[in-house]
Amino acid sequence: MDYGKLSLEKHYEWKGKLDIVPKVKVETKNDLSLAYTPGVATPCLVIQKDITQSYTLTGRGNLVAVITDGTAVLGLGDIGPEAGMPVMEGKCVLLKTFGGVDAIPLCIRSKDPEVIIQTVALLAGNFGGINLEDISAPRCFEIETRLKAICDIPVFHDDQHGTAIVVGAALLNALQVVHKKIASVRIVINGAGAAGISIARFLKDLGAENIILVDRFGIVCEGETWMNPVQAEMAKITNRNHLHGLLATAMKDSDVFIGVSVGKIVSEAMIGSMAKGSIVFPLANPTPEISREEALHAGAAVVGTGSSDQPNQINNLLVFPGIFRGALDVRASDINHAMMIAAAYGIASIVTKEELKAEYILPAPFDRRVHAAVASKVAQAARDSGVARI
Amino acid sequence: MDYGKLSLEKHYEWKGKLDIVPKVKVETKNDLSLAYTPGVATPCLVIQKDITQSYTLTGRGNLVAVITDGTAVLGLGDIGPEAGMPVMEGKCVLLKTFGGVDAIPLCIRSKDPEVIIQTVALLAGNFGGINLEDISAPRCFEIETRLKAICDIPVFHDDQHGTAIVVGAALLNALQVVHKKIASVRIVINGAGAAGISIARFLKDLGAENIILVDRFGIVCEGETWMNPVQAEMAKITNRNHLHGLLATAMKDSDVFIGVSVGKIVSEAMIGSMAKGSIVFPLANPTPEISREEALHAGAAVVGTGSSDQPNQINNLLVFPGIFRGALDVRASDINHAMMIAAAYGIASIVTKEELKAEYILPAPFDRRVHAAVASKVAQAARDSGVARI
Repeated sequence: MDYGKLSLEKHYEWKGKLDIVPKVKVETKNDLSLAYTPGVATPCLVIQKDITQSYTLTGRGNLVAVITDGTAVLGLGDIGPEAGMPVMEGKCVLLKTFGGVDAIPLCIRSKDPEVIIQTVALLAGNFGGINLEDISAPRCFEIETRLKAICDIPVFHDDQHGTAIVVGAALLNALQVVHKKIASVRIVINGAGAAGISIARFLKDLGAENIILVDRFGIVCEGETWMNPVQAEMAKITNRNHLHGLLATAMKDSDVFIGVSVGKIVSEAMIGSMAKGSIVFPLANPTPEISREEALHAGAAVVGTGSSDQPNQINNLLVFPGIFRGALDVRASDINHAMMIAAAYGIASIVTKEELKAEYILPAPFDRRVHAAVASKVAQAARDSGVARI
Repeated sequence: MDYGKLSLEKHYEWKGKLDIVPKVKVETKNDLSLAYTPGVATPCLVIQKDITQSYTLTGRGNLVAVITDGTAVLGLGDIGPEAGMPVMEGKCVLLKTFGGVDAIPLCIRSKDPEVIIQTVALLAGNFGGINLEDISAPRCFEIETRLKAICDIPVFHDDQHGTAIVVGAALLNALQVVHKKIASVRIVINGAGAAGISIARFLKDLGAENIILVDRFGIVCEGETWMNPVQAEMAKITNRNHLHGLLATAMKDSDVFIGVSVGKIVSEAMIGSMAKGSIVFPLANPTPEISREEALHAGAAVVGTGSSDQPNQINNLLVFPGIFRGALDVRASDINHAMMIAAAYGIASIVTKEELKAEYILPAPFDRRVHAAVASKVAQAARDSGVARI
């Protein structure tokens, strides 16, 4: 099916995927006096005295901004802020549909991290949370880190953390299928950009002790000269056996392969060289590093991909609606590591011991239970970690 | 009725007056593939090639931002951006209810005109228009002027122009009631701040030739030393008879009084000193310069006030929904003088010759015909003046 052509037709028909609908009918002078002047002066003055009242007297408590500069939209690259809008509107549709979260897109006409940071900070008073989206690396790291420090509301870069969390959830359940422990497996992550590095960090948070990051130039390892600063930092906490070489070397005898790189660069022989009971998540988009069929043929025990037409779709739609729902429900000041870990366990928990098998390690995103579970666990983690404000 | 108390209760119940509602159902994998990935890449790429497609492939073509810094909210003054939000949400409700315009509030955490200008300009790609709201004078003049020059979408400061347009409409009809011509009447405007100056400029656009602006220090007149730069500029184009003195001097023998100042500063004697067939619009909020009853008792022929409980309410709600509707309908690049004049005539035209009388010079804002008439006349004026883009 040509989704692109049909999607274009639909977008011309929709003329925007979001409708701004008043919750308040204004049909009489009395309605107007309550929703607007003169009555509205009173809620204004209440907020002036106590700014936290903005969470209950306006939409702020349930409102998230989906913010991009259009520099890394889908796999399309730097297509500009206006061109990123259909994706951002789509993200807002999903936040409402699956998380009950009101969300509006804001595309910023600048690529300067300083300008983006200042703009978002100036607007933070309108929102209960900020979702950064499709901002290119390494700018996305600085923008997120600085905004988390400046803003009094949660800032979450879904491309980094959403992906890491859903990979973590998939891995937790896949390891149960093959009866292995996260602390003892060797995990190869191919692609040492924003996604790969976020996944590596998050799997460490989940207890992984043996991670090998691989970039196009080879294994990320202390002493290599081609690494960028972020990779050099990762070299200090991954690959503790100081393995040098290319992807094939990293994969030999490894237990887990996670691909966030480019299509068709993993051979059946490389999968065959992995340890018994191997877990393979080739997530490159739109063409995976190796197809599900080839990976299974070469002996992989559990395979998860990005495709919605295959079992075990590893899709961050399992993550972001619930994580924002949970954060907003407790008026969290941050989305911290504890909340992200809770989200991964929340997703994993939906698949029962009885249901769990190689072809079913993750729930479908249309399974409403998953978003509720994520929200509830994220809210609890926010309370336990001290960032909940109600 | 205590609107304040009840409005506060309602605001706690509403938790925000706007609901962000997806136009698109996402219930199946197919839905997801059209509204989001992979299909959404195609509309993104179409916009990348031709940015004007953002008006039809996203919500931009029907979306207005209501922007404030919270410095001049209602009559409450500088209460801060978060505290201004209930008013901004209310404005968005009215834009949708009466104009079918999607609108979202954005409150900016800065009072620096440079910062506000830059922030709005960076976000212009999301919107089809910008409504500036409750920004204090004289900052509002610079912010609007600079943004109109920078942005490729209409920028409209409702507190200035919305008020001027509805006063203009009221005056056009009131003059018919008393059988006078706008070019020959003497018009006194008390209050030489943002509203008064905008009204003076607009009435000149409508053909008024004899306007006298009065500030708390007296009549705005060339040679006076107390005037600010904007008032000094106005002195060159108003009060051509070089009248000096205070309000009472200005009002003697005048035909029209428009008050945008403070309550209870006009006496019955001052009204009595006006020419026969006088038109009196005491618009100070919440207490007018003189009450309707007193003005009528002192001999005023037509009285209009800001109160919804009296005949002839002069309310900018008659203006802004239709003006944005008309501008968006033709994808206008500006809301220019011609469009504002058209809006005033659009409002005035709703009252037929047969209906027109001293107690009915303006339609009620709940009269849906007015917004449609304003929209249609504004769109036509945009076409005629060359700022329409479709």
